[in-house]
Amino acid sequence: MTTETVKQAIRNIPDFPIKGIQFKDLTTVFIKPEYLTWLRQQMIQRYAGKGITKVVGMESRGFIIAPMAAEAIGAGFVPVRKPNKLPAEVIEQSYEKEYGVDTIQIHKDALNSEDIVLLHDDLLATGGTMSAAIKLAKKIGVKKIYVDFIVELDALHGRDKFDKDIEVHSLIHF
Amino acid sequence: MTTETVKQAIRNIPDFPIKGIQFKDLTTVFIKPEYLTWLRQQMIQRYAGKGITKVVGMESRGFIIAPMAAEAIGAGFVPVRKPNKLPAEVIEQSYEKEYGVDTIQIHKDALNSEDIVLLHDDLLATGGTMSAAIKLAKKIGVKKIYVDFIVELDALHGRDKFDKDIEVHSLIHF
Repeated sequence: MTTETVKQAIRNIPDFPIKGIQFKDLTTVFIKPEYLTWLRQQMIQRYAGKGITKVVGMESRGFIIAPMAAEAIGAGFVPVRKPNKLPAEVIEQSYEKEYGVDTIQIHKDALNSEDIVLLHDDLLATGGTMSAAIKLAKKIGVKKIYVDFIVELDALHGRDKFDKDIEVHSLIHF
Repeated sequence: MTTETVKQAIRNIPDFPIKGIQFKDLTTVFIKPEYLTWLRQQMIQRYAGKGITKVVGMESRGFIIAPMAAEAIGAGFVPVRKPNKLPAEVIEQSYEKEYGVDTIQIHKDALNSEDIVLLHDDLLATGGTMSAAIKLAKKIGVKKIYVDFIVELDALHGRDKFDKDIEVHSLIHF
């Protein structure tokens, strides 16, 4: 199994969700057990031994790999969600999208200053959601932040939005 | 680690999302690595060796454990999502909620007649979403269906909505 094999398994959907966008559909990767195992192994290889205590996944597609990665490296899983989904006390962060503003939330007691966190989402496009998640983690004042994606769309330069002191990694680049 | 230990870790949130509901918050379980590992082991113990080819998770909270379970038993992961989220051709199923109608979708090519599927969600309440997911799997004509939850609210009798030929299991009961 190579990165190239998994990249080939990603389905390209033209004009989704809007005209002009080439959507990278990862469901055709997740549906193959051998690719799930490969993704789990990649997460272990890269992140085991770094002292990561929490893996934070972005709703919804970030929930697919983050908990498996957390379990595999001996960390806990924490969800970042859209408003009105998390039931206990939250802190939130808004960010600008192409049209309008979005907000994400995290449970206030989910992270603390001792945590080394891995923020994970399936795909890095413009980086708006992940920038907001980084702000949330910094507001709480965690010890260290890693940022991880399965796929990165290089042409959109999303990683330029992130603070330079943060280690950012994507498995597959387009 | 026992079921009772994990049950104790579930956080009860009164009056969420609406007055009168005792919300069972599983984020306080997922945040502990040892509970994630316990959940993974429970899924292996129960479902390995049954020939399950696909584990289907319900958006969003069903995405947390379904992919990890799929990987652990050598199956693929398939998402069931709300409308306009899945990019390729879908089939859909509507179902009645307390106020109004909801619809769920699955990729048309995600399951086939050779599949033995495990439908998973985090919590069984009235069973509306899962009934709809069962209908989707039956429309496609899969070989066999298992239904799985982490938590079941027994007083709501959600499992009575499911066809009697389907094996339904929940790890934790309230």
